[in-house]
Amino acid sequence: MKLLEDRIRKDGKILPGDVLKIDNFLNHQVDTKLMEEIGEEFYRLFKDSGATKILTIESSGIAIAQATSKYFGYLPFVFAKKTVAANMAKNAYEAKETSYTRNIEYTVQVSREYLNENDKVLILDDFLANGEAMNSLIQICRQANAEVVGCGSVVCKTYQPGEKRIKDLGYEVKVLARIKSMSEDGQIEFEEQEE
Amino acid sequence: MKLLEDRIRKDGKILPGDVLKIDNFLNHQVDTKLMEEIGEEFYRLFKDSGATKILTIESSGIAIAQATSKYFGYLPFVFAKKTVAANMAKNAYEAKETSYTRNIEYTVQVSREYLNENDKVLILDDFLANGEAMNSLIQICRQANAEVVGCGSVVCKTYQPGEKRIKDLGYEVKVLARIKSMSEDGQIEFEEQEE
Repeated sequence: MKLLEDRIRKDGKILPGDVLKIDNFLNHQVDTKLMEEIGEEFYRLFKDSGATKILTIESSGIAIAQATSKYFGYLPFVFAKKTVAANMAKNAYEAKETSYTRNIEYTVQVSREYLNENDKVLILDDFLANGEAMNSLIQICRQANAEVVGCGSVVCKTYQPGEKRIKDLGYEVKVLARIKSMSEDGQIEFEEQEE
Repeated sequence: MKLLEDRIRKDGKILPGDVLKIDNFLNHQVDTKLMEEIGEEFYRLFKDSGATKILTIESSGIAIAQATSKYFGYLPFVFAKKTVAANMAKNAYEAKETSYTRNIEYTVQVSREYLNENDKVLILDDFLANGEAMNSLIQICRQANAEVVGCGSVVCKTYQPGEKRIKDLGYEVKVLARIKSMSEDGQIEFEEQEE
């Protein structure tokens, strides 16, 4: 997605530890027009998926899911909750996720009320690095016997294992901005887009 | 907002501890069409406020801010981050908030990059009970010397101190569904709407 790549080049900051900070338009301050364009692009990529529900994870996935839903005729979305507390929730599916940027293990939860074997689920998230968050959402869908019909990420660092990990689980992964390399002097190189 | 009151009556669950659970359309699973209608209503109420930025708080405020922004010509929004960790962030405004439903004290943070004295801020959130979250956002705006031009909440329990607390700080508060009383047998009574 050219518009997104240009924006990442313009506003992205590369922090020590191979962290790309794009919190001035994606995950702290949000450019809501760009978010709609991201939603429209996810619709273009997944419109034939048969999705009946969007699943994402707090907090950064929420605006993405809200914006994308409209293009799918206002599909409901569910955002998984992350907690550091280990107490088992009654009536929830649970999985573990280790945060890439914070190196903390979270428990990821979705209420059993909002995911079941009739759901065809499109999973959306902001970043795909090691695939921890997306994997936790897939595990939750498996617990619910819901079918995952696609996985979309706004940004992916393709030299990290996340994309391959999700594909190896058997799922289609679509990414809007595929980062091939980045360096602390601010250079970001993108891969050619897939169709 | 009649549509919202009807939906709360239909889908709301009242839990022990005076907690209204509406997580099947507002803050776990999200009805994105209703969210747009909420956004349109906030625009109707605040269109003359002169807002240049929307400020909300993760996670439940994000979809509300995303949906509302469009009606204001795609104003950017910022979502404050909540953390239980007490470590002072560099380069962030901070305030404290005690969660009504969880009775945990959070540190609420907004990067100094995204709020300053030129901003006219519309604060939006999902629930107004004791006013802890909204107060924390106001304190952050004061630290930034940003002007708060209005405060909107999707739901308010008017028998709790939040609304008066925010008004006493000198701010206009608009609420879409004003709950006068609710009981554990499922009865919810709403106040007359203001114009």
